[in-house]
Amino acid sequence: MEDRLDRQLRFIIEIDKVKAVLRRTRLFDNSRHENDAEHSWHLAVMALTLREYADGQIDIARVIEMVLVHDIVEADAGDTFLYDETANEAKEEIERQAAERIFGLLPADQKAWFASLWEEFEARLTAEARFAAALDRLEPMMQNALTAGYAWKRHNVRRGQVVGKNRPIVEAGSIALWRFAEGLLDRAVESGHLEE
Amino acid sequence: MEDRLDRQLRFIIEIDKVKAVLRRTRLFDNSRHENDAEHSWHLAVMALTLREYADGQIDIARVIEMVLVHDIVEADAGDTFLYDETANEAKEEIERQAAERIFGLLPADQKAWFASLWEEFEARLTAEARFAAALDRLEPMMQNALTAGYAWKRHNVRRGQVVGKNRPIVEAGSIALWRFAEGLLDRAVESGHLEE
Repeated sequence: MEDRLDRQLRFIIEIDKVKAVLRRTRLFDNSRHENDAEHSWHLAVMALTLREYADGQIDIARVIEMVLVHDIVEADAGDTFLYDETANEAKEEIERQAAERIFGLLPADQKAWFASLWEEFEARLTAEARFAAALDRLEPMMQNALTAGYAWKRHNVRRGQVVGKNRPIVEAGSIALWRFAEGLLDRAVESGHLEE
Repeated sequence: MEDRLDRQLRFIIEIDKVKAVLRRTRLFDNSRHENDAEHSWHLAVMALTLREYADGQIDIARVIEMVLVHDIVEADAGDTFLYDETANEAKEEIERQAAERIFGLLPADQKAWFASLWEEFEARLTAEARFAAALDRLEPMMQNALTAGYAWKRHNVRRGQVVGKNRPIVEAGSIALWRFAEGLLDRAVESGHLEE
């Protein structure tokens, strides 16, 4: 048991690095960039709050497990900006190696379990993964909308790109939440925070 | 439904403030203080990783819901240092008002549900709340042990106080985790990071 607990604690210490991975978007008060750990926490509370809008029958506990774990690979791989096409091509292999190393710190049964959560999130084949992915796309749209389009402007992202990248994902998890997101984008264009 | 979603979104935006509440302890690499949002995320992943050490039958989903929500009241009330006796006397009423205001942003059914989670955590009467509380005490002991006793030294906390405040809580949730924590404290005393 000693060795098992040692491995689990090594994993718990290692994932502290997730707190140092900065995202492109900023907190709602525009004070600083958000990190992956607090982003994952926010998605989990969003899942608890917005679960009634998920399309399909979902096991909310599984959704929460997925959002808690979905960005751990970024401790090694870093955050990939959604609109950076080149970086996104390389991302899959880099993240797979990160999963192998970081979940590999755990005992074999737990390595397999955490890896399966991450793979389920990435594959988006279950209703739970689709809802988790919808929340993961909704939060940065809200952050951009509330910070005068901070990351959109900085990286010259236009409405068409935001819709193209996010609509299929959000809509697959929750039609109601996509309807809300579309309203956000419309108001952002009207306010000059997002280019048409 | 529009008004219901509006209220839920107001809550989701409001709790972003949890990311600005700094704790006394620092990240494992000693680079900066930890905030409540990333602390809550870490506890949730610790719960997933260490669930086998919980004493009593636990519903792990409930543990995770509690750790995700347990510090939301601090968006208004701020973090109270465990070893500050005066502040801890005033804490209960201040946090109760914070719960009333912040969970009160939600529709009534959800206000009641989130408040019940927070109250269950505070009361420590269920096996789930006891395990959640044990993790909430374990993380800062690990942080202090890994940062050469940063918060212990800064606030002149001695081994007897650490044991007195934490042993009853950690042991009630997990005998195995208290055994590990005790080892941490012993090594911290030997290394001069914690005063006997």
